[in-house]
Amino acid sequence: MGATEDLTKDDFLGGKIAIWQPKRGYRAGVDPVILAASVAAKSGQSVLELGCGVGTASLCLAARVPDLQITGVEVQPEYAALAQRNADENALPLTVVRADLRALPTELRQERFDHVIMNPPYFDRTAGTASDDTGKDIAFAGDTPLQAWLDVGARRVGPRGYLTLIQRMERLPEVLDALAGRLGAIIVRPIAGRTHRAPELFLLQARQEGKTPFRMAPTLIMHAGETHQGDQESYTQEVACVLRNGAELPIWS
Amino acid sequence: MGATEDLTKDDFLGGKIAIWQPKRGYRAGVDPVILAASVAAKSGQSVLELGCGVGTASLCLAARVPDLQITGVEVQPEYAALAQRNADENALPLTVVRADLRALPTELRQERFDHVIMNPPYFDRTAGTASDDTGKDIAFAGDTPLQAWLDVGARRVGPRGYLTLIQRMERLPEVLDALAGRLGAIIVRPIAGRTHRAPELFLLQARQEGKTPFRMAPTLIMHAGETHQGDQESYTQEVACVLRNGAELPIWS
Repeated sequence: MGATEDLTKDDFLGGKIAIWQPKRGYRAGVDPVILAASVAAKSGQSVLELGCGVGTASLCLAARVPDLQITGVEVQPEYAALAQRNADENALPLTVVRADLRALPTELRQERFDHVIMNPPYFDRTAGTASDDTGKDIAFAGDTPLQAWLDVGARRVGPRGYLTLIQRMERLPEVLDALAGRLGAIIVRPIAGRTHRAPELFLLQARQEGKTPFRMAPTLIMHAGETHQGDQESYTQEVACVLRNGAELPIWS
Repeated sequence: MGATEDLTKDDFLGGKIAIWQPKRGYRAGVDPVILAASVAAKSGQSVLELGCGVGTASLCLAARVPDLQITGVEVQPEYAALAQRNADENALPLTVVRADLRALPTELRQERFDHVIMNPPYFDRTAGTASDDTGKDIAFAGDTPLQAWLDVGARRVGPRGYLTLIQRMERLPEVLDALAGRLGAIIVRPIAGRTHRAPELFLLQARQEGKTPFRMAPTLIMHAGETHQGDQESYTQEVACVLRNGAELPIWS
């Protein structure tokens, strides 16, 4: 990985940004785009993304909200290099730090952020079959426990700041447990493929010093209609506005 | 409370059962009816309801599934007496035990059940203003911590048996935490007043020795339409089938 012929350059947000990513291995789908759309960042604020991969979520956020100071942490050198290249080529303010999130550089450990965002691997390495592509493997089935992601994330949220993440529904109890007593005002927004389908993912937002009790937002429905209609583009209007126009998608909406 | 003039007799399930309850104080709404509809009990099985009040959930369940052996535990003597009277007058197999769930009689502590069900108070006594009606107060804002309900409930679920409960959404993290490592195959079904509204209640089902990972079922929508239309009856079809005909409402549906 690294030679341009091993990469593709893909448009996101209806062409607002273009992102180099490996042909093989973990490839960004809609999840980091939805994550970025749900972060209520304001110009001038600081953002930390843990496990930024090729930078999709951070760059989508930077494309929507001007003048953010975004730091992306990525452990895999090839992804970290691509994320920095993507930031530079799109002229967006993302600084990539190549580091294991469990051993952040001192500067980062001394800093706290207005927003911490993350899209941690959906599966545990121990639970799945090892892939032959290490990059995909770590991004898809991490070797860092989810608990560690949340622990590090919660520590880096500044006063009244927010943690926002997207994760598989079956890990909701684990995520709530890891955040208990650390961050408050938790909002969970289930994400379902279609109306009447069980939600398989969720967005979660939590706030440093937040006192509001736990809330669940209405489910975000990705596709309109009851079943898939051939090749027709089927995103619901609010999802299409995010994917095509880079719209905001407040978690409590 | 106790004299017939202080009571009302109300039809449930379209008249399948009639239930005496105090005019003042805690009065059963749709929540225990929905709870009962979500319990997948089969004829011949045993059921324990913790905090059965006047018996609404247990009697709704008994009316739908013949030949259950149901035990209801209720700490408040007046409610316990009404529950037994309601069982007898409806000729349904509910045995009421007057006891604090934290100090169950030895016979109950030696027994395990195919199903344990509960609709614990939605508010903490410490959080609210004391009502002048003690009966309502304890039913609405309990003096038994939710943790204790779940602890006792989990202990009384037999091999491969189920715990089913209904509770306020803001207490979901607390409930999941209390069940962690005790029961598995947890399914949460959010309950919302209308489509696009945030769900304010949830049903939860968990299984003794259940191995299936946590799942969230599609949200149960109570009322059709976006807003309330005057006096018109507005229940969605699946809820109306429960309330008017005593239909089953599987939690994973």
